[in-house]
Amino acid sequence: METDDRTVRLTIVGFGHVGGGVAEVVMRKHHAIKERYGLDLRIVGIADIKGVVTNERGLSESEITKFRLGDESVMAEGISTRDMIKELDHELMVEATPTNVIDGEPGLTHIITALESDRHVVTSNKGPLALQYRRLMELAGRRGKMLRFEATVGGAMPLISLIRNNLAGNGIISIKGILNGTCNYILTRMAEENLPYEHVLREAQEIGIAESDPTKDVEGIDTAVKLVILANTVFDMDATYRDVKVRGITDITPDALKLAHDAGYTIKLIGEVDTTGRLEVAPRLVPIRDPLDVSGTLNVATIKTDLAGDITVIGKGAGPIEAASAILSDIIGIYDTGQSQTKHLQ
Amino acid sequence: METDDRTVRLTIVGFGHVGGGVAEVVMRKHHAIKERYGLDLRIVGIADIKGVVTNERGLSESEITKFRLGDESVMAEGISTRDMIKELDHELMVEATPTNVIDGEPGLTHIITALESDRHVVTSNKGPLALQYRRLMELAGRRGKMLRFEATVGGAMPLISLIRNNLAGNGIISIKGILNGTCNYILTRMAEENLPYEHVLREAQEIGIAESDPTKDVEGIDTAVKLVILANTVFDMDATYRDVKVRGITDITPDALKLAHDAGYTIKLIGEVDTTGRLEVAPRLVPIRDPLDVSGTLNVATIKTDLAGDITVIGKGAGPIEAASAILSDIIGIYDTGQSQTKHLQ
Repeated sequence: METDDRTVRLTIVGFGHVGGGVAEVVMRKHHAIKERYGLDLRIVGIADIKGVVTNERGLSESEITKFRLGDESVMAEGISTRDMIKELDHELMVEATPTNVIDGEPGLTHIITALESDRHVVTSNKGPLALQYRRLMELAGRRGKMLRFEATVGGAMPLISLIRNNLAGNGIISIKGILNGTCNYILTRMAEENLPYEHVLREAQEIGIAESDPTKDVEGIDTAVKLVILANTVFDMDATYRDVKVRGITDITPDALKLAHDAGYTIKLIGEVDTTGRLEVAPRLVPIRDPLDVSGTLNVATIKTDLAGDITVIGKGAGPIEAASAILSDIIGIYDTGQSQTKHLQ
Repeated sequence: METDDRTVRLTIVGFGHVGGGVAEVVMRKHHAIKERYGLDLRIVGIADIKGVVTNERGLSESEITKFRLGDESVMAEGISTRDMIKELDHELMVEATPTNVIDGEPGLTHIITALESDRHVVTSNKGPLALQYRRLMELAGRRGKMLRFEATVGGAMPLISLIRNNLAGNGIISIKGILNGTCNYILTRMAEENLPYEHVLREAQEIGIAESDPTKDVEGIDTAVKLVILANTVFDMDATYRDVKVRGITDITPDALKLAHDAGYTIKLIGEVDTTGRLEVAPRLVPIRDPLDVSGTLNVATIKTDLAGDITVIGKGAGPIEAASAILSDIIGIYDTGQSQTKHLQ
C-alpha cells in the first residue's frame, strides 16, 4: 500500500530487560508499523557491556539472540559503544541502560554522543533527565533532533505525551500520583492483610516486585526522580532530584493503615508537583474509591488543568514490554506527525 | 518570540453552551496559544438559528456578546449558515449544533459543506459521526482536510487522541467504560443513599444533571452513540448506533445495588467494544475500587492493549468548558505536529 516507506535505522544501547523488550516489540510489530505508519524500523546495532553487534541492513533475530546469549561469533571486534553511536549510520538511538541518579552515567554520555552525532534519542533512563534535563534539551534543540522519554515516568502509562498532545491548550496546575509500583504493592498488601512492612517487603522481594536493595523504591527516590522529570517537562523548571522533599514508606504501620481505613481513607506514596514549584514525595491520605486509590503495582496520576478539570490516567508502571511500548510510541511519534487520519489502530 | 505565527480563521456553527464555550476559551487562551504554538486563532464568523455574524479580521468580544444576546445590529443580512461556511474565507469550522441520531442534521450538512469548501472541521456533534462516519472520513481524505471529534466521546477525557497518539504501536483489544455522566450520577447516588431510581432521577433533573426528557441518557442511547464512534475510529468498523445491543439503567433497583455491594461490587452502565465486533451497552457488575469504579458524573474508559496492558483514563464527561477544551486541543492538533519539544505547557 505505502509507496513512500521510510527506513528508520535504530541502535539500542543497554540490552537488559528493557533493551531486549524493545528489540522484541520492534521485531514483532515490524509489519504492522510498516503498514500503518509507513515506517520500516530496522535495528542496525546493539551495544551493552558484553560488546557490540552491528548489521547495516538490519540485525536478524538469530544475530540478536546470539548477542543476548553472549556468543562472541556475532560481536564486532574493536568497536566501542561510543564508536557505534558516532560512526554507525543510523537515525535514532534507544538508550536503555540502568538509571544512575548520582552522575547519570553511562546514559548521559551515550545521549550526548548520539545527539552530537545527529541521532534522535528515545530513552527509558531517568538519570540523565533528572540531572541534566535542560542541557540535554538545549543540545537536542541546537542539533534539530528529538529527545523523547515517555518510558521514564509511569512505564506504559502515557503521561508526558498525554499532557503534551492531548491536553494542548490547557494550563496545567498540578500533577499528583503514585509513580512507583513497588511502594503501591507494599501499601496495598499491608492494608489488605493487616501485615507489617517488613513482612510484605520480603514477600515483594520473593516475587520479584521489590529489589534485594529496595532503598530507591521504598525511600521515595524513584518517585522523586520521576517527579523531577515531570517538573522539568511540564512546568519548565530546572530541578534535580535533590530539590524534592522526600519521605518514603518505611515507617508506615498496619495500625496507621487501619485508622485511615476506618475514616474512609487509604495511605499511598504520593508525588506532587505544581505551578508554585512544590516538589514533594510523601505518604498521603487518599479517600477510598478516589481515582488515585488504585491497588497492587498500578501507577496513577491526576493532572489538574484549567479547562479540562482533573484528568486521571492509570496504567502498569513497570515491566519490560510496557517500557518497550512507551519507547515504541516515542519512536513512531518522532516520525509520524499524527496528521494522517485514515490510519487505523488494529 | 515566534516570527512565523500562523493565522487560523475559525467559524463556529451552533452557538449554545458548547459553541459559546469555544468562543470563550479561544478568547481567553488567545495569547497563550500564540506564544506556545505560534497560532493566531481568530473567530471570523458565528452562525446559529438566531443568525450569522462575521468579521473577516476577527470578531471582537463585544460583537460576540451582542450576537449571543440576539442584538440584530451585528447580524449579517441575507447570509445563511451555508453561505457563511461556503463563502466566508476561513480555514476551520467548529460544528457544535446539538446531536441528532435520526438523520444527523443539521450537523451533517454543515460538515459536508465545510469539507467540500476545503475547511478543516472540528466537531462535538455525535450524530453525523454515528451515522455517516466512513462517508465523512472519505470526503475529508479526498479534500485533504482534517475532521476531528475528540469532544464527541467523554468530553474532556482525551480518549480518541490518547489511542491515536500515545499508544501508537499498540494493538487495541477492547475499550470498556462509563461514557455517560448522568447514568453514573444516578447509579452512584442510588447506591450511596439506598434510594429508588425515580427519586434520584428527579433530583438529577432538579440540579441540571439529567434533562427533562432523560431517555437518551438513561436508556443507554448516548452511550451507544459514543461506542459507535469509538468502534469506527479505533476498530475500523462501519457501524451505526442501530448495531449496538443496548440496555439502560431504568430497571436497576436499590436492592440490586445493595446485593452487588455486599458481594464487593457496584453496578455501572458499561459500554464495550472489542476486536470481535462486540458492541454492547448494559448495566454490569464492577468490582469496588476497580479502575472503572468512579463516582458521580465522572466518565472512565479502560483500553486493553497488546503491549501496554490496560490503560485507564478518567475525566469529566460533560460541561461546556470541558467540551471546548477538547475542541481546542483538536484545533491545535491539526496545526501543531507535536514535533516541537521545547514548547512548555504553562
